[in-house]
Amino acid sequence: MSSAAKNSTPVRSTLSDKAKAVAGEAVQGALVDLLDLSLVAKQAHWNVVGPRFRSIHLQLDEVVSLARSAADTVAERASAIGVSPDGRAATVAKESGISSFPTGYIADDDVVKALIAALGAVTVRMRKRIDDTADPDPVTQDILIGITADLEKYAWMFQVERA
Amino acid sequence: MSSAAKNSTPVRSTLSDKAKAVAGEAVQGALVDLLDLSLVAKQAHWNVVGPRFRSIHLQLDEVVSLARSAADTVAERASAIGVSPDGRAATVAKESGISSFPTGYIADDDVVKALIAALGAVTVRMRKRIDDTADPDPVTQDILIGITADLEKYAWMFQVERA
Amino acid sequence: MSSAAKNSTPVRSTLSDKAKAVAGEAVQGALVDLLDLSLVAKQAHWNVVGPRFRSIHLQLDEVVSLARSAADTVAERASAIGVSPDGRAATVAKESGISSFPTGYIADDDVVKALIAALGAVTVRMRKRIDDTADPDPVTQDILIGITADLEKYAWMFQVERA
Amino acid sequence: MSSAAKNSTPVRSTLSDKAKAVAGEAVQGALVDLLDLSLVAKQAHWNVVGPRFRSIHLQLDEVVSLARSAADTVAERASAIGVSPDGRAATVAKESGISSFPTGYIADDDVVKALIAALGAVTVRMRKRIDDTADPDPVTQDILIGITADLEKYAWMFQVERA
Amino acid sequence: MSSAAKNSTPVRSTLSDKAKAVAGEAVQGALVDLLDLSLVAKQAHWNVVGPRFRSIHLQLDEVVSLARSAADTVAERASAIGVSPDGRAATVAKESGISSFPTGYIADDDVVKALIAALGAVTVRMRKRIDDTADPDPVTQDILIGITADLEKYAWMFQVERA
Amino acid sequence: MSSAAKNSTPVRSTLSDKAKAVAGEAVQGALVDLLDLSLVAKQAHWNVVGPRFRSIHLQLDEVVSLARSAADTVAERASAIGVSPDGRAATVAKESGISSFPTGYIADDDVVKALIAALGAVTVRMRKRIDDTADPDPVTQDILIGITADLEKYAWMFQVERA
Amino acid sequence: MSSAAKNSTPVRSTLSDKAKAVAGEAVQGALVDLLDLSLVAKQAHWNVVGPRFRSIHLQLDEVVSLARSAADTVAERASAIGVSPDGRAATVAKESGISSFPTGYIADDDVVKALIAALGAVTVRMRKRIDDTADPDPVTQDILIGITADLEKYAWMFQVERA
Amino acid sequence: MSSAAKNSTPVRSTLSDKAKAVAGEAVQGALVDLLDLSLVAKQAHWNVVGPRFRSIHLQLDEVVSLARSAADTVAERASAIGVSPDGRAATVAKESGISSFPTGYIADDDVVKALIAALGAVTVRMRKRIDDTADPDPVTQDILIGITADLEKYAWMFQVERA
Amino acid sequence: MSSAAKNSTPVRSTLSDKAKAVAGEAVQGALVDLLDLSLVAKQAHWNVVGPRFRSIHLQLDEVVSLARSAADTVAERASAIGVSPDGRAATVAKESGISSFPTGYIADDDVVKALIAALGAVTVRMRKRIDDTADPDPVTQDILIGITADLEKYAWMFQVERA
Amino acid sequence: MSSAAKNSTPVRSTLSDKAKAVAGEAVQGALVDLLDLSLVAKQAHWNVVGPRFRSIHLQLDEVVSLARSAADTVAERASAIGVSPDGRAATVAKESGISSFPTGYIADDDVVKALIAALGAVTVRMRKRIDDTADPDPVTQDILIGITADLEKYAWMFQVERA
Amino acid sequence: MSSAAKNSTPVRSTLSDKAKAVAGEAVQGALVDLLDLSLVAKQAHWNVVGPRFRSIHLQLDEVVSLARSAADTVAERASAIGVSPDGRAATVAKESGISSFPTGYIADDDVVKALIAALGAVTVRMRKRIDDTADPDPVTQDILIGITADLEKYAWMFQVERA
Amino acid sequence: MSSAAKNSTPVRSTLSDKAKAVAGEAVQGALVDLLDLSLVAKQAHWNVVGPRFRSIHLQLDEVVSLARSAADTVAERASAIGVSPDGRAATVAKESGISSFPTGYIADDDVVKALIAALGAVTVRMRKRIDDTADPDPVTQDILIGITADLEKYAWMFQVERA
Repeated sequence: MSSAAKNSTPVRSTLSDKAKAVAGEAVQGALVDLLDLSLVAKQAHWNVVGPRFRSIHLQLDEVVSLARSAADTVAERASAIGVSPDGRAATVAKESGISSFPTGYIADDDVVKALIAALGAVTVRMRKRIDDTADPDPVTQDILIGITADLEKYAWMFQVERA
Repeated sequence: MSSAAKNSTPVRSTLSDKAKAVAGEAVQGALVDLLDLSLVAKQAHWNVVGPRFRSIHLQLDEVVSLARSAADTVAERASAIGVSPDGRAATVAKESGISSFPTGYIADDDVVKALIAALGAVTVRMRKRIDDTADPDPVTQDILIGITADLEKYAWMFQVERA
Repeated sequence: MSSAAKNSTPVRSTLSDKAKAVAGEAVQGALVDLLDLSLVAKQAHWNVVGPRFRSIHLQLDEVVSLARSAADTVAERASAIGVSPDGRAATVAKESGISSFPTGYIADDDVVKALIAALGAVTVRMRKRIDDTADPDPVTQDILIGITADLEKYAWMFQVERA
Repeated sequence: MSSAAKNSTPVRSTLSDKAKAVAGEAVQGALVDLLDLSLVAKQAHWNVVGPRFRSIHLQLDEVVSLARSAADTVAERASAIGVSPDGRAATVAKESGISSFPTGYIADDDVVKALIAALGAVTVRMRKRIDDTADPDPVTQDILIGITADLEKYAWMFQVERA
Repeated sequence: MSSAAKNSTPVRSTLSDKAKAVAGEAVQGALVDLLDLSLVAKQAHWNVVGPRFRSIHLQLDEVVSLARSAADTVAERASAIGVSPDGRAATVAKESGISSFPTGYIADDDVVKALIAALGAVTVRMRKRIDDTADPDPVTQDILIGITADLEKYAWMFQVERA
Repeated sequence: MSSAAKNSTPVRSTLSDKAKAVAGEAVQGALVDLLDLSLVAKQAHWNVVGPRFRSIHLQLDEVVSLARSAADTVAERASAIGVSPDGRAATVAKESGISSFPTGYIADDDVVKALIAALGAVTVRMRKRIDDTADPDPVTQDILIGITADLEKYAWMFQVERA
Repeated sequence: MSSAAKNSTPVRSTLSDKAKAVAGEAVQGALVDLLDLSLVAKQAHWNVVGPRFRSIHLQLDEVVSLARSAADTVAERASAIGVSPDGRAATVAKESGISSFPTGYIADDDVVKALIAALGAVTVRMRKRIDDTADPDPVTQDILIGITADLEKYAWMFQVERA
Repeated sequence: MSSAAKNSTPVRSTLSDKAKAVAGEAVQGALVDLLDLSLVAKQAHWNVVGPRFRSIHLQLDEVVSLARSAADTVAERASAIGVSPDGRAATVAKESGISSFPTGYIADDDVVKALIAALGAVTVRMRKRIDDTADPDPVTQDILIGITADLEKYAWMFQVERA
Repeated sequence: MSSAAKNSTPVRSTLSDKAKAVAGEAVQGALVDLLDLSLVAKQAHWNVVGPRFRSIHLQLDEVVSLARSAADTVAERASAIGVSPDGRAATVAKESGISSFPTGYIADDDVVKALIAALGAVTVRMRKRIDDTADPDPVTQDILIGITADLEKYAWMFQVERA
Repeated sequence: MSSAAKNSTPVRSTLSDKAKAVAGEAVQGALVDLLDLSLVAKQAHWNVVGPRFRSIHLQLDEVVSLARSAADTVAERASAIGVSPDGRAATVAKESGISSFPTGYIADDDVVKALIAALGAVTVRMRKRIDDTADPDPVTQDILIGITADLEKYAWMFQVERA
Repeated sequence: MSSAAKNSTPVRSTLSDKAKAVAGEAVQGALVDLLDLSLVAKQAHWNVVGPRFRSIHLQLDEVVSLARSAADTVAERASAIGVSPDGRAATVAKESGISSFPTGYIADDDVVKALIAALGAVTVRMRKRIDDTADPDPVTQDILIGITADLEKYAWMFQVERA
Repeated sequence: MSSAAKNSTPVRSTLSDKAKAVAGEAVQGALVDLLDLSLVAKQAHWNVVGPRFRSIHLQLDEVVSLARSAADTVAERASAIGVSPDGRAATVAKESGISSFPTGYIADDDVVKALIAALGAVTVRMRKRIDDTADPDPVTQDILIGITADLEKYAWMFQVERA
């Protein structure tokens, strides 16, 4: 591929242009949210303090693993339907659905609150993506459904820690 | 810890204030570079095209693994010396030593060039951090040395692919 | 959470109240059926006699593994949507869709018949749950679909043993 | 075996009828207690809420593993001495030595209390079974001793969490 | 089963006759395509020549693994709904959706072209099967969706190698 | 390699032309037989019915594994001596030494009979190939001997099931 | 040790001479029975024929593993209490408690009968050894109890195959 | 627990006070012996010299593993019966049943002698603990029996090296 | 198979009667030698004494593993060619090519001597079996060659220990 | 080596006598501190009580693993430079840099305090050893640096639990 | 063995002197070739440059593994027949059948050419060794055949990369 | 890269020319020593004779593993700093720091002596390389330090075998 041609897609999609646009927007949006979730959870993993440090420190690394793996899945799904994924730091910083995370050390209960908020924001957007892709591309939708099930499971686990 | 106290450190360092400042700056800088390296290598992993796609796609995931693991190591080293690490997307976007990566699909040889540049930029900064920390904290220095050895190994591997 | 508050839910669902009620009933029903399936299959695993003992003894333990794992999945799905799952022995004994299993040793062919009946009863109910949850919650539905695929596979395997 | 013959035993025991009756009662009792323990611990695993959620959630799954594995061991011991084991839901619901577990979500400290009570009730009954089987069947006794050691270890771990 | 009875099915389906006919045709068609894909990919694995031999040789074995595993899944799904699967060589040779593969050694870039064509042909047919089975049997559909996601991922990977 | 050149071999054999012809015919013949054996055994794996279903279902998958692995070995041996292997569906359908396998479900004992016949037909042909290659190429012969030992072991196991 | 001294023991036992004599006889007897059980089960493993061949062939290898491992345990226990164990073929042939096994191929149900007899003979003798060693050496007794539990489990499994 | 309350036990034992006192003394004594055995074996592991260095160096590490694992088991048994275990260096130094080990390098045969003495001293004391706990607590006794079996096995292995 | 028919073979050999007789005698002879080698090596494993105890004790277990595995291979080869293998204790005691092994403890160097003699006796007989089977059955010969290579490797290792 | 010679070293060091004295003192001091750390952490592992029991119980075992592994490393480093390491209980009790640990059960927060103190005391001494060995032996220094990095990581983790 | 006796062999061969001389020369020659192949492939592994660097770098390490493992096999075969193997650097440098490899970095295609030449030279010599050893020692021959099969497989893989 | 350009380096070093020359000489020297160590240790592994054969045979293979792994590390470090490594047989034969190893079988104690000499020669040279690289390249130095620590550990182990 010549350098000039990089914005045209080298992958012929099995989807119509319209379906591809909808599915592409869904997976690109999910990619940004999931990468930011992985960075936020790592940030909390390093900065959490308080008596529940160890338990939450470990729990956050499970979120990081999930988010990284899911990000890879949606990015490769984007490529598979002929849409170039964008997961660069500046893109993530600008387009993520997660509120900005505070600087410095952070008390364990505040971490739990922040994760509930982050997971809540992402799952709401994922639900919309599931709805949007149902008709255009059930294959993409199925991938988003699987990721959302995992995210909602972690959302439960953090919520009950504040019950 | 009360929420208000979050900028004071909960960890009493074995280092003097001055040594801690130098070591802290080194590991915070390394953290940002390594996180950006992980994001850039993933971006390339998803967007590379051309006859050498599969080989470079796999090679990039090794860089991602190395960068993620090393980022975790330096962030936890920051915490261990009483400095709060900052690995949030906006911080990475603003302070990374790696030049911005292009959007869209990217030809395999261009990926190799971009990785040579990225690894080159990071290793130059790592070398300076190794010098800076030699006296203030040989423990931090030893960690930086180990990471640099790995980065220079990958820098070699990408360079010879253009020979 | 105060002890008195235990019937209110600590998890804010992403579902509407109505969708949550439907999905909650589906997963609670599945939980009871799957736990009973695991107990019935273990009971048969211990009491089967006859020339085909070893083969069926091992086959039943695969059903136990599947049923236990699936029960855990639906119970945690219940929690994730804000519905408290109930998997206690008395609840299982009262609400299971599986007919009561005989006491004492049981001949190998009779075990196969009993498992065909048990898996048949559960899959019919699972099919209804799949229909019920399609609109209210495709995430829950997808989980039920995956479990039903596994149950129908075992239903096939026991049926052909009587062909 | 004809269907009619199912209450006679197909296994010739190495024990006298009397020894077999005593050992059989011991292992059947243990089976019911252990199956209920596995169900109760899973119920708590899904419904526990509070700041210690994650730690207790994981600890309960260790109890589930122990209880399931021990239940299998005693049920197969029953079969090995020519006694048909009964581990059906209704039997468990009726004959378990564990007090009924509450419905709904349950606060973490209440879960610990409930597990202390459950493990306490079971170990008292196991101790009696150890005494009862010493003369009739040292092989059965040895199995019960091993299980009791494990149960008492978990009883310690939950008790000290309330110290 | 008497030898004469072999065309009647020993498995009572949970589907209506009509739904079963549609789902059965979908999985039988998928079986043939996937078995041929596994044979074609192996043929290429052995006969590819050229500078990119090793990379493509390995990549093709991943396709073989995927195709074999997916073929097994759809064949067992056929059995699970009461339809006898047919994966014999003559059936595959006659009914596959993949164009005939050339004899003899084949240059690496030609292999990539051939795989793009083969994967393209199969995914188009899989997409149709996904549509066909949506109403009759969402369980079968979900299985086809999962396989199609994997096939489209490999289709992307071969396509970008020619970009 | 230009597309036109595909029938000339890119591999310089260590064998004389005559030896290569003999060895090439032996491994090509073995390849076809082994691939068909893998397809037939899978066909039986999916369609077997009767009380011995599970045992034979598992046994057949061991034959599939052996046949696939052995097919790969002989195909790569063909390439190693400079002969292009042909394992395409049409070739297998036309040249296999195994009699055609019936359609539809098939009773367990009939499967055993069919496998005895299939393994018998293949081992007779393998024995001839062992004789043919002894002088021209002991390396090829040694590979055929190892595969034949495995095939004769499975032939024994199926035969004694009908004793 | 000089060659002449080989009948005196190089191990000072923690047992009295009398206790050592009793325990030594028990473990030596168990060694012979267990080695013969391993040889008999292998003999049956190779010679069994009939429709249940595969299931029993595998089951017998589990008995072989158990018998070999248990034989090693009791032989090393003999050495540990200062008694030289004797597990040579002639000793086994002469002193085993298992009836002689027939020559030639043997029908599957006859194998089951033979194993029931062999396991029955050994467990009766093991029970006596458990009684004998209770006072002289509870450590040796505990080892014999553990092995007997395993043997009685296999005795159950073979017995119910004839129910 | 308030700091002041640390000598009262937080664990309600299933044993009578008297039984608990006997069992507690036994496991506390075993703990001290086993920890010292682990330290002595490590000391020898590092300081052994002579032609048999490698063999004994490795053998000693097996003793270390056994002693550490057994120490953990008896310490947790102490806690399980409501007795606080004491495994601090000063306690071990004062109360161990093992004679003091020499300083400096030590010849291989002298190491063997020292280990025979150490294992001999510990097994004599373990035997007494087995007798003492038989009635008060068969669960504790069973744990001590299992450890003693392992210790006596190693005692044999070192003794025969001097035969 | 009726009980009366047990001496006729249920396996149709691919060999002529004469070839089968020669190959059958070779593998039956190898079976007896290898089983005795496994028993002799275990006997030595338990009874060896002297400074080199540990090294030889471990080395002997490698011989046991090899001999057991090879015995299984030749016995199953016998079955595969239609010859019933005989590996019973009395047969081994009567027909083994290994000289009788002494009773009681045995000094390490004497064990080495005995193993050199045993391995020497077996390899001489194996060499003859290799010659005998070359023409009648190269498949059987190849199995014997592989086993002999392993035996001669151990023969070397024991011989050099006496150099 | 004769028994009398045990205080002279059998290892010729690559270091000068002076360098060896400095390095030897550093590793011997580290050995004592690390062994005591392993004993103290185990003591706390068994005696900790309170709501955070499970989390701290597990965290302490990680410290034990680190301390044991590091102790082995420095002891073998001592031997490698020709200095006999001394890790006996009495030496540890007398020379450790860690304050004495209280008897009896200990509340979870008190355990955290005690571990912070213990890790703090050891890291201060390790820092000095790093300085001392820089010139005399950079190989020894590098080992001490690696261990100190791990210790400071755990020091951080316990400190933030009290923030 | 006294130092003076080192050229006489401590292993009594099962071969005649003449057969041993032939087989010994074959395995010694193979040893030298294989060791040089391992060194040459490593040299290329480190010095290869060009776009195909990564693929060839990995492929070369597979050759290294094969060559090292095969060298060990033939060297131990030499010892097993009573011939001292010689694999020292000077011997390898002088007697290897592989042409000298260039100094410095080397382009990827040149590496492929060099490996084709090296593997070609070695396989020609291996073929002669197979012929030479057929009569004197079929055990040695079988080992050489197995290694040659592997070498010819790699020879194919490198050759087709230049097609 | 054109063939002519092979002596110029394709890797831009992060080091100055002078630093690179020093570091390059150090790693090239280490490479030759380590490769020769691996060949010498293998030579001894195959040719050692005497009562301690097995122990030393195994110990030597650990040295081989260490030497091979370390050689790979330093060779890749050379490449990483832009210096072509040379590990060909002739280079090793000419430039190694290890004295020539004798031909033929070699008594166990003589092997120990030879390894002590070889490891001694290499560690002295490694120590010099550590000094030389401290300033020019701490990354290279750190790699050399780690390898030297391992070599000195093995030097200890062989030395004490002669104490």
